[in-house]
Amino acid sequence: MRNITSAATMQRLALGWRRQGVRIGFVPTMGYLHAGHMSLVRRARQLVGRAGKVVVSIYVNPTQFGPSEDFSRYPRDLKRDQALCRVQGVDLIFVPSDEEMYPKPFSTFVTEGQLSDAMEGQSRPSHFRGVTTVVAKLFNLVLPDAAVFGAKDFQQAAIVQRMTRDLNFPVKVVVAPTFRESDGLAMSSRNKYLTGDLRTQAVVLWQSIQKVQALVRKKRTLGAASLKEQLREFIELQPAAKVDYIEFFDPVTLRPVNEVRGGTHLALAVFVGQTRLIDNAPL
Amino acid sequence: MRNITSAATMQRLALGWRRQGVRIGFVPTMGYLHAGHMSLVRRARQLVGRAGKVVVSIYVNPTQFGPSEDFSRYPRDLKRDQALCRVQGVDLIFVPSDEEMYPKPFSTFVTEGQLSDAMEGQSRPSHFRGVTTVVAKLFNLVLPDAAVFGAKDFQQAAIVQRMTRDLNFPVKVVVAPTFRESDGLAMSSRNKYLTGDLRTQAVVLWQSIQKVQALVRKKRTLGAASLKEQLREFIELQPAAKVDYIEFFDPVTLRPVNEVRGGTHLALAVFVGQTRLIDNAPL
Repeated sequence: MRNITSAATMQRLALGWRRQGVRIGFVPTMGYLHAGHMSLVRRARQLVGRAGKVVVSIYVNPTQFGPSEDFSRYPRDLKRDQALCRVQGVDLIFVPSDEEMYPKPFSTFVTEGQLSDAMEGQSRPSHFRGVTTVVAKLFNLVLPDAAVFGAKDFQQAAIVQRMTRDLNFPVKVVVAPTFRESDGLAMSSRNKYLTGDLRTQAVVLWQSIQKVQALVRKKRTLGAASLKEQLREFIELQPAAKVDYIEFFDPVTLRPVNEVRGGTHLALAVFVGQTRLIDNAPL
Repeated sequence: MRNITSAATMQRLALGWRRQGVRIGFVPTMGYLHAGHMSLVRRARQLVGRAGKVVVSIYVNPTQFGPSEDFSRYPRDLKRDQALCRVQGVDLIFVPSDEEMYPKPFSTFVTEGQLSDAMEGQSRPSHFRGVTTVVAKLFNLVLPDAAVFGAKDFQQAAIVQRMTRDLNFPVKVVVAPTFRESDGLAMSSRNKYLTGDLRTQAVVLWQSIQKVQALVRKKRTLGAASLKEQLREFIELQPAAKVDYIEFFDPVTLRPVNEVRGGTHLALAVFVGQTRLIDNAPL
């Protein structure tokens, strides 16, 4: 497994592979890898075959963090990430520095303007501008045939798909299912923040999803507003839990719906202690 | 010479060339081609060699026109453009429709935020957003090794270079010299608008540049503010001429300077009748 830190070297290798007809599968990550990431790596391998190359980028992208967010304390453990990637048969990890990714003066951004305003975009202004910009950069450096994103970041995946289509990147964007702990908590590098009792309370996100799924199976249609209120109450029974948002929306347009039914998508963001967790699922 | 209208076909061909190690040279245009464009085509051929492919795109990009600008009456003559490209040895022209380039819903834009605000950006808000967005799209569809832009659009060329570097497009951006008519008027598709006496008056842009170049050779440094005033008066001696802007700036940062000297860059935009003309040169 190669460990590349230079953007120019990464691109030179990728251009060489392309010229040789080698297919490139790509999993962009912020590191501190877990089993969810590894499932994306396996999907990437499936997509490009044994003759292809699987590239994982490990980069905590500063432009997608707000000023009061956890950029500096975001968990990092490159040694462990390298070991996991090696075991999973990754061909190359790309681990650039900030200077490598954002040489000064830097002044170009990619923005998506229809799917980015609600939910995560409302709670984290300029977050998605950071995501689309870094993904565009990584696509140009890694030149993947296919890139795999996790469904846990549902809105992100939708925005990356839209950007890829709008800007005509020759990349197939694949969204792979959310990986969960045995109690249902969606895997996330940020779960590391959940110490002691907070870890137990965090399962309330998944419990909420299951609760609504059961309701929709029974009742067919439900009013979104009252359902949100019920869910909020249910979630905040956990002493450390505070709802950031609960949204019922159309999974294609991401527009909120008033009537919740089968096919409606649910996404939620909840603070558990200081840690902001997200989850989502189709109903 | 191939004539391609489908974005998907364009990209498929380009991916095939890349896989075969065929170098691709690209000249993006809005059509109504003239000798200036042809000089860009020859430069592209030089860059990729006889074994390479030269692609010219012909697309009047709506997103770079303001609501009160000349999008709908911008001159078009595809037959003539095709003939010129054929004679010049172009391998492929890409002539997409608006539906092909901006399928609905379209919501992703590329913006450059440091070089885009002054001069053309001030006179034509959102113009450069349209330019960087369409160039990013065309880069992804044509997958060029090298792309050639004209120096007549100096600010555009600087912004495209910055975008290419910031977003890591694997494209060498080359800026080729401005082509001029025998009396010095910079070649432009918009010169078609200049009927009768207006064509004669239009040479005042080039006369202004030469005037300042001569002054700088003689005086070494000059105050930008008073020089602007002198130039404005000189230009507006032409009855149909009205200055939009005159700017003296650093050619790397595009920041205005107070002291004009050798190496300072001059750019100007002048309405001649209803037609807005631009020109620029190093001093």
